[in-house]
Amino acid sequence: MKEEGFTQHHISRQFNIELSELRNQFLSMGGLVEEQLANAITALVTRDYHLAKRVATSDYKVNALEVMIDEESRIIIARRQPTAIDLRLVMAVIKTITDLERIGDEAEHIAQMALQTEGEASDKYFIAVNHLGDYVRSMLHDALDAFARLDTESALQVIHESIKVDGEYESISRQLLTYMMEDQRTIPVILNILWSARALERVAAHSRNICEYLIYLVKGKDIRHTSLETVEEQALHTR
Amino acid sequence: MKEEGFTQHHISRQFNIELSELRNQFLSMGGLVEEQLANAITALVTRDYHLAKRVATSDYKVNALEVMIDEESRIIIARRQPTAIDLRLVMAVIKTITDLERIGDEAEHIAQMALQTEGEASDKYFIAVNHLGDYVRSMLHDALDAFARLDTESALQVIHESIKVDGEYESISRQLLTYMMEDQRTIPVILNILWSARALERVAAHSRNICEYLIYLVKGKDIRHTSLETVEEQALHTR
Repeated sequence: MKEEGFTQHHISRQFNIELSELRNQFLSMGGLVEEQLANAITALVTRDYHLAKRVATSDYKVNALEVMIDEESRIIIARRQPTAIDLRLVMAVIKTITDLERIGDEAEHIAQMALQTEGEASDKYFIAVNHLGDYVRSMLHDALDAFARLDTESALQVIHESIKVDGEYESISRQLLTYMMEDQRTIPVILNILWSARALERVAAHSRNICEYLIYLVKGKDIRHTSLETVEEQALHTR
Repeated sequence: MKEEGFTQHHISRQFNIELSELRNQFLSMGGLVEEQLANAITALVTRDYHLAKRVATSDYKVNALEVMIDEESRIIIARRQPTAIDLRLVMAVIKTITDLERIGDEAEHIAQMALQTEGEASDKYFIAVNHLGDYVRSMLHDALDAFARLDTESALQVIHESIKVDGEYESISRQLLTYMMEDQRTIPVILNILWSARALERVAAHSRNICEYLIYLVKGKDIRHTSLETVEEQALHTR
């Protein structure tokens, strides 16, 4: 990981240290969120009550990290009064940890669905959501990796992936709907799986946000909420 | 509205103007989001296709405002290098407009559900979600009002309300579930209403975030993700 991206050889060696610490805190929050998401999906698909319980009761760790990193960022801004790329970096961290915190919430939500689904349902209902889970997990991983390496091309890849997720989510919803129509006794369980699929779709959207912020950070131009074409154009110009 | 809260009589008159500008931009983004939410709920409950279409195609305005306000904030930080309460204000704005933008997304989501539900369903399915909608709308309004007046007591009120919403959402889910079990032909329509209820529950959570940030802003202490007791204690000490 080219840490130089984060520490621009400042006059102040201390400032360099603070910036790379901020980066490391961001990455460890990302690591924790990845773990929460992975465990939540496993807990749902394998109906592992104890694992689900652990995820549902560990979200506070993610929240505590967000609060700490916000505070760190505020102190850096107040003390170092960063400008240009440094300020954009700090702002990108402030904004993207909100996405990480929300991903933590979605993982907790999936874990709660798992707690309600315990034991009950036939495995076939979980195949598609499990596949979507793997897909979204690797998206999140790639987004964090791109952020760590300030790699706008990988970020663009993730943005592409996030579009595929929408289609995948739609087809899962349709499939689960037919299961419910066939046998209404399955409705309560299927609903939990539907909620979980929706949560995964949200995680994909948050991973996309992180990548758009990365491009903003590197390009110094905000490409959020713009068409993919524009995003691509922006990202290519950062090469 | 006591604007002094936002403009602390700085040496620089220009800085005062910039801060109250930032405040006004935040409030106009809030106003737009309120309007989007109100229209989305009306569109769903009255099955108004054209209104739903309008909400679904207006979300870009909210997104554009978020990008603009982020940029404004970055410029203020870079140019004025605010500290203490000023910096906390700018950070509170940077964080809370993310909640406003997400509320805009939820409104768009409800509008999309309305587009799919057009004409089809019996009115009785919409009574509860309509009531929840009114409730959540007034929560959002109070949250924005509290932010505008830097009123931590009102903020605390909203945080209290947000807890009631969870119970309301649970009972709506149970009620809609029974409708689906009784007659599976209703499943597709009821699902749209369920998604909308969930979206409203998210709006309540975002309104709560805004109030927690307000208390952070006034108190200078972060009370997010803490128990209501702690939040109360914090808020009372701001009197």
